[in-house]
Amino acid sequence: MLNFEYSIPTKIFFGRDKINVLGQQLKKYGTKVLLVYGGGSIKRNGIYDKVSSILNENHISYFELSGVEPNPRIETVRKGAELCRQNSIDIVLAIGGGSSIDCAKVVAAAAYYDGEPWDIVTDPGKIAKVLPIASILTLSATGSEMDTFAVITNMNTNEKLGTGHPDMAPKFSILDPTYTYSVPANQTAAGTADIMSHIFEAYFEKTKEAYLQNRMAEALLKTCIKYGKIAIEEPENYEARANLMWASSLAINGLLSYGKGSKWSVHPMEHELSAFYDITHGVGLAILTPHWMKYVLDETTLVNFVEYGINVWNIDENQDKYQIANMAIEKTKEYFISLGIPSKLSEVGIEEVKLEKMAEQATRFGKVGNFKPLDKQDVLSIFKAAF
Amino acid sequence: MLNFEYSIPTKIFFGRDKINVLGQQLKKYGTKVLLVYGGGSIKRNGIYDKVSSILNENHISYFELSGVEPNPRIETVRKGAELCRQNSIDIVLAIGGGSSIDCAKVVAAAAYYDGEPWDIVTDPGKIAKVLPIASILTLSATGSEMDTFAVITNMNTNEKLGTGHPDMAPKFSILDPTYTYSVPANQTAAGTADIMSHIFEAYFEKTKEAYLQNRMAEALLKTCIKYGKIAIEEPENYEARANLMWASSLAINGLLSYGKGSKWSVHPMEHELSAFYDITHGVGLAILTPHWMKYVLDETTLVNFVEYGINVWNIDENQDKYQIANMAIEKTKEYFISLGIPSKLSEVGIEEVKLEKMAEQATRFGKVGNFKPLDKQDVLSIFKAAF
Repeated sequence: MLNFEYSIPTKIFFGRDKINVLGQQLKKYGTKVLLVYGGGSIKRNGIYDKVSSILNENHISYFELSGVEPNPRIETVRKGAELCRQNSIDIVLAIGGGSSIDCAKVVAAAAYYDGEPWDIVTDPGKIAKVLPIASILTLSATGSEMDTFAVITNMNTNEKLGTGHPDMAPKFSILDPTYTYSVPANQTAAGTADIMSHIFEAYFEKTKEAYLQNRMAEALLKTCIKYGKIAIEEPENYEARANLMWASSLAINGLLSYGKGSKWSVHPMEHELSAFYDITHGVGLAILTPHWMKYVLDETTLVNFVEYGINVWNIDENQDKYQIANMAIEKTKEYFISLGIPSKLSEVGIEEVKLEKMAEQATRFGKVGNFKPLDKQDVLSIFKAAF
Repeated sequence: MLNFEYSIPTKIFFGRDKINVLGQQLKKYGTKVLLVYGGGSIKRNGIYDKVSSILNENHISYFELSGVEPNPRIETVRKGAELCRQNSIDIVLAIGGGSSIDCAKVVAAAAYYDGEPWDIVTDPGKIAKVLPIASILTLSATGSEMDTFAVITNMNTNEKLGTGHPDMAPKFSILDPTYTYSVPANQTAAGTADIMSHIFEAYFEKTKEAYLQNRMAEALLKTCIKYGKIAIEEPENYEARANLMWASSLAINGLLSYGKGSKWSVHPMEHELSAFYDITHGVGLAILTPHWMKYVLDETTLVNFVEYGINVWNIDENQDKYQIANMAIEKTKEYFISLGIPSKLSEVGIEEVKLEKMAEQATRFGKVGNFKPLDKQDVLSIFKAAF
């Protein structure tokens, strides 16, 4: 196990009607709130009305940054930072999924940054101070509700980059599983793939002595596999929505990666797909993952895939190890297909002619991942296999 | 899944030489420290010298409360609180296992309490303010390094009671697995049993929809089962010591019980054994656990034991369910015996004549546990079976 420093300060209010803590919690930080949200779904499902009535009752004034994109844009961050400064905002409250929360995080940091907000995305070291952030989660996927990271897109440069800072961890997040009842099947599927991908990024790594972390990762993978399907079949199944929601937070809050030397593989590749084509992040991950697995399977990674097959997919251990590994990869692919997710890049509008350019971009800072470090040709091979 | 509010604010500095953060971390809270520790082991293994040299280098003055008992006594707490007040202590630093940390926690609360310290043990509601607490862990067992609880013994009244407060969570804990290399086999065994018992208390509970939590509990149980034996056979096996140490913290920091309605069963019974006989807590737990399991196994709890047998002990699922459950219980018993722990109360000096009195005491506040609530006669039956 590698040395680590564990700090997960975000408070989670989990369960039905937990929205009722909102007023009291916000007032710890001030009385001027910037609401950050995406499209109209929170207006249709009543969450917006509920929040505004709580704010009014508690004499908390609020300003709004709405229309946050599924892959939030730097232009929107700029607008939000401006609103914070103009209105002396005390706390930034995201309502939505990872897009709104990621946007809120960078808005909160940009509010204290004098230069161009894109600078603090390309160089997180420039983040010195961050407004307090809170979130009300409406989509189980990115885990942004309990972590310190954010991903922002710059369509001018076709860049989608991650940034982060310890103070970007939300002070608190409200996780009411019923708020995800109205999430449609395709987004539930993509969200489940995103959670699973976060777990894979921590799990497929070579620190041998991180036994505890690997068993925890398997616990969360089994949770996603079981409940992803149920949530799609029965959108109002509380048990399924609750298990997925809590899995989304624990998958990426550090629990699985503390003590390991994870350097992500599939996310950096996918970010290029959605930077160039604005596709749904979880869909891109689900398409790439099995092809990445096949590509990196060799004698040095075999043990990880065998563990995965036996412990997660209950594959009979009394057979050839490569057979176990390949069966596990096949089951992963079949699972994503069973959720209704496309299985080829060509099905989501990506053009073969751009694969090379995207592979180049994915490796512009060096090799991708450390489970099996991938150069441009490796990434291109994976893109082509997934095409 | 039940509603819950998650807050685990303790920072963990985990790994080799993490003691080097001590000076910088302490200075966030002040320059006057009360060291709380037990016997001479930290003097023999060099930790005491290391700590005092760090404190001196950082111009931090320190006072000492040494001789904390394995089951820490209220008299020692009283002495510690007095030292805090007399010397205007800024932060209480425990060095040791759960006994020292529990003692430090109640000392830190008693320092701000005007009355008799035993009051804040019997009534945690009386705790209003707590000095900051930190710990350097030297024994993997109680999880006190990352939770909000403490257990204190009053030998005058033969009471061993738990207390707790959110501010009793250590601000930070330093977990260096090499600090447990010198823990002898019997204490390593008892510690492993204690960790496993914390997991059992959360795991054997009837909230059906807490799938995620149950799989996480199994992940930690497998970790303890694997590494408890290795740590005894190879005391300086870093991998084993590291996995056990991190398991001790995660077993009881809330992760496994948030979302469930756990009310503990075996701990309250064992507390009477160590209140009356001052036996090692983990040994008492290991002796009672299999007998408790046998006693509470019925058609309403069968499903939990079947899951336990299949998922933790890899028992073949294609057989009679009671057979799976009973095999799992037998394996639990055999495992504790394989660690060298006695398997009968009579072996650790407990007298049959006191069983009834202890059963009465264990149930004086009502039935024990909620997996299957136990009255005095139930507890007595378990004690007798374990005798």
